[in-house]
Amino acid sequence: MTYVRNAWYVAAWAEEIVAERPTAVHVLNEPIVIWRNAAGEVAAFEDRCIHRLAPLSLGRCEGKRLRCMYHGLLYDGEGRVVEIPGQDRVPNHLRVRVYPAIERHRWLWVWMGDVEAADEALIPPVTGFDNSDYLLFTGQLDYAAEARLVNDNLLDLSHVSFLHAESFRMGEIWARERPKVVERERSVCIDRWIRSEGNGGALDTQERVDTYFWHEHFVPGILQMIVRLYPVGTAASLNGRQPDLSQVVDNFAIEAVTPLTDKSTRYFYLMGMNRRTYDEAARDANMSTVRRGFQEDKVMIEAQQRNIDTSPDRRFKVTPADQGALVFQQIIEKIARQEPTHNSATRSSGSRSGVE
Amino acid sequence: MTYVRNAWYVAAWAEEIVAERPTAVHVLNEPIVIWRNAAGEVAAFEDRCIHRLAPLSLGRCEGKRLRCMYHGLLYDGEGRVVEIPGQDRVPNHLRVRVYPAIERHRWLWVWMGDVEAADEALIPPVTGFDNSDYLLFTGQLDYAAEARLVNDNLLDLSHVSFLHAESFRMGEIWARERPKVVERERSVCIDRWIRSEGNGGALDTQERVDTYFWHEHFVPGILQMIVRLYPVGTAASLNGRQPDLSQVVDNFAIEAVTPLTDKSTRYFYLMGMNRRTYDEAARDANMSTVRRGFQEDKVMIEAQQRNIDTSPDRRFKVTPADQGALVFQQIIEKIARQEPTHNSATRSSGSRSGVE
Amino acid sequence: MTYVRNAWYVAAWAEEIVAERPTAVHVLNEPIVIWRNAAGEVAAFEDRCIHRLAPLSLGRCEGKRLRCMYHGLLYDGEGRVVEIPGQDRVPNHLRVRVYPAIERHRWLWVWMGDVEAADEALIPPVTGFDNSDYLLFTGQLDYAAEARLVNDNLLDLSHVSFLHAESFRMGEIWARERPKVVERERSVCIDRWIRSEGNGGALDTQERVDTYFWHEHFVPGILQMIVRLYPVGTAASLNGRQPDLSQVVDNFAIEAVTPLTDKSTRYFYLMGMNRRTYDEAARDANMSTVRRGFQEDKVMIEAQQRNIDTSPDRRFKVTPADQGALVFQQIIEKIARQEPTHNSATRSSGSRSGVE
Repeated sequence: MTYVRNAWYVAAWAEEIVAERPTAVHVLNEPIVIWRNAAGEVAAFEDRCIHRLAPLSLGRCEGKRLRCMYHGLLYDGEGRVVEIPGQDRVPNHLRVRVYPAIERHRWLWVWMGDVEAADEALIPPVTGFDNSDYLLFTGQLDYAAEARLVNDNLLDLSHVSFLHAESFRMGEIWARERPKVVERERSVCIDRWIRSEGNGGALDTQERVDTYFWHEHFVPGILQMIVRLYPVGTAASLNGRQPDLSQVVDNFAIEAVTPLTDKSTRYFYLMGMNRRTYDEAARDANMSTVRRGFQEDKVMIEAQQRNIDTSPDRRFKVTPADQGALVFQQIIEKIARQEPTHNSATRSSGSRSGVE
Repeated sequence: MTYVRNAWYVAAWAEEIVAERPTAVHVLNEPIVIWRNAAGEVAAFEDRCIHRLAPLSLGRCEGKRLRCMYHGLLYDGEGRVVEIPGQDRVPNHLRVRVYPAIERHRWLWVWMGDVEAADEALIPPVTGFDNSDYLLFTGQLDYAAEARLVNDNLLDLSHVSFLHAESFRMGEIWARERPKVVERERSVCIDRWIRSEGNGGALDTQERVDTYFWHEHFVPGILQMIVRLYPVGTAASLNGRQPDLSQVVDNFAIEAVTPLTDKSTRYFYLMGMNRRTYDEAARDANMSTVRRGFQEDKVMIEAQQRNIDTSPDRRFKVTPADQGALVFQQIIEKIARQEPTHNSATRSSGSRSGVE
Repeated sequence: MTYVRNAWYVAAWAEEIVAERPTAVHVLNEPIVIWRNAAGEVAAFEDRCIHRLAPLSLGRCEGKRLRCMYHGLLYDGEGRVVEIPGQDRVPNHLRVRVYPAIERHRWLWVWMGDVEAADEALIPPVTGFDNSDYLLFTGQLDYAAEARLVNDNLLDLSHVSFLHAESFRMGEIWARERPKVVERERSVCIDRWIRSEGNGGALDTQERVDTYFWHEHFVPGILQMIVRLYPVGTAASLNGRQPDLSQVVDNFAIEAVTPLTDKSTRYFYLMGMNRRTYDEAARDANMSTVRRGFQEDKVMIEAQQRNIDTSPDRRFKVTPADQGALVFQQIIEKIARQEPTHNSATRSSGSRSGVE
């Protein structure tokens, strides 16, 4: 596994982190406790007491402090040990690892790399979490698979035509249409027009539409998608180019792919459908379809992982549809190479399939 | 584990392989999809799409072709890729591994070795699958144990006296009687007379009988057994020699032992009881006893495997009863030595108990 | 893991070992069958038949002998093979490993080291199993954790203040009071006074008491605890020294920590409350509290083990409260070093956390 460490990972929904109820999560194989003190402030510590590695997620919040409830070591909000029961003086240097943590939008983000390099500006510019113009729904899903397979799935939507043939019912045009793929410094953008197809339940019309579909996939695995419906003929009149995106979009998705361990991944999603375009019945129908589709992804990706595990030396064959996934993987590997010490420390000894 | 690769393994009951419903199996640690097209033709492919190792067993039959339902690669009946969605030309050399597969009797056999060496004549000459003179019953059972332990169990029936003391009720004569063991090129034959014991529910008589018991165990783990009842005194008059076997037998069994993985085994069986000798009540009683007996085998063999796993360097001690199992193992190892490349590629790194 | 082999381990409650019903246990990763013949005599054998490693715990008692019920090898009470079905002569040297076993108090103890070194005098001098002056209760609990973590838990009772804050309700005085720790040849003794606290349900008084608390922890993990209540002021008048322990104690505990495998541990306990001090209601309340407390230990210790497993190179930090645990570990390691051959043979390759 190659991971970028100097990046913000989504560890939880912010609302899940209830005051004075420490929560255990894993990110990049590391046990982390996320806790919110009575004042509402959030922190993320390594979930191992320095004393005997007991989990601090079984600990007790005491004001702005967190106490390990095995033998009582008390930590302040910066991870310093401020009390050891039965010991008169506490050496100054005793501290647990603290991960920079930010509550932003509706997610709790943790920074897995060098603390000095933590930069809020690197939280991907995903938008729409609280936009009341949209009907929203959210969810999450765990995969017994490496995160890369989940990212690959989202970066190559040609699979929608096959894996989701019975749920999303997009037809094979999806798989045959080659999207445009643009590499950026920490993301890849992918867009396509789907011409003269169904409108996905939009209000006020039974007509076919041209649909413009755009998604940007950011390091380490954060995704914004937007979808915009147009009258049939628009794609042709634009010659397949991008339309004006300053206008309001019809629906969007924000998704985060977090490696819990080398073989397990948590997937968070929030979807919005414009009230101007869709009503609640259309939102509910879409929500049901999306959840069925994600179950189809889960079955396939977990089976793919099992096949990889039984043939770790087997390599993938590249097809044109892989382009987005390949570019994203190259970005990941390029950034990771610039983080030599962290990556050498956390590189798993497990084997994985490469690309031929 | 030492496996013969140039051999036919039973992968499934033929009737299990329903048209247009691909079925996933494992043989010798390899994931295999067995599928039957609408015309009823059967094929066995490696169960990993060449693109990204997704399982073809989640695929869709399209006429004589099989489509991977992740990103849509389409394979013809010979395993060639004939379509990659979004790609104009498909290189000629792209193909998934195809295993020679034959439907024979009521089983689906796959050849695990060199395709050029696949020879139908090597399917063991087991008979009786469809003989209407016999009352039949079938079943299958999975063991969490290596296949060798299941073969050993069938090759040393002295265990019937002890492990099956309460089910088959054969008495200790079974274990004390030393059977004759004859080595053949790809099989071992074992026979014995059991004199003046119960008749196992035969019609028209409450009398004791002399029973002649013969079984041949073929590479890689296919077994034919026959049992013939005679008046008491026959064994003595023949001086313990084999009777005329061209006559019809009273009951028989056909069994197959298939290594799914190095630590799991599937056991298929079909048993026949001559209508001339037994009625349906006797068949049902025997079926019930057999199934109870196989559960006894399962408990013992799986416990034996756990003990082997915790002491991989511990060797077996040889007793006279082991002779059939030892000869069979020697045949396996001799044939496997003549298949150097395959065996080196698939040899497990796991440890196992040897024979001292 | 470092284990002392020349020591008695508690393998089972003696009453669990029913005549002619062989029982499978594990001690120090080794499968052992404990069996009692019709005459009531107990023996412990390696739970692997010498023939093909089938478990003797699935065997059949025949008078003073034990028969393997796979192929019928018969063992006498000293582990010698006395019969091999189908074999005329049995070589004299064939025998299964026998572990010295003693029924003492209410436990069945097995000796895991050199048979010649087995010495009943090394069974720790724990007392009170059958003392009718006490209301008794017993129990056992399995931990998915290495035995050392369970011993550490019992050797550092400062955790009672935190982990058991809601069950034992002892207050933080427990954790702040530093107990006296005394090293002996094969044990460590730990004692402390807790002054002017609740009396734990003693009869005839609502008053606060001074409580004297003493425990001795023997190799390999056998523990005797005693508790004695005194009028407030006694500790001060004794200047914190040990009171006269020849007097009857108010309550006691006897506990045994047995490593089943490197990552699983069985914990046996027996507790006694003096009828002079407590009634049955107090016993029942205490039993309920103790069981709740042990569940708290189990949750914490198993979580600690998982954290150790994911960071095997991480070392513990020493605090003053660890002193008892450190001294005990030093005793274990010192004795184990004097048993070079056994320990090298059974040393696990698994990694573990050390002490810094």
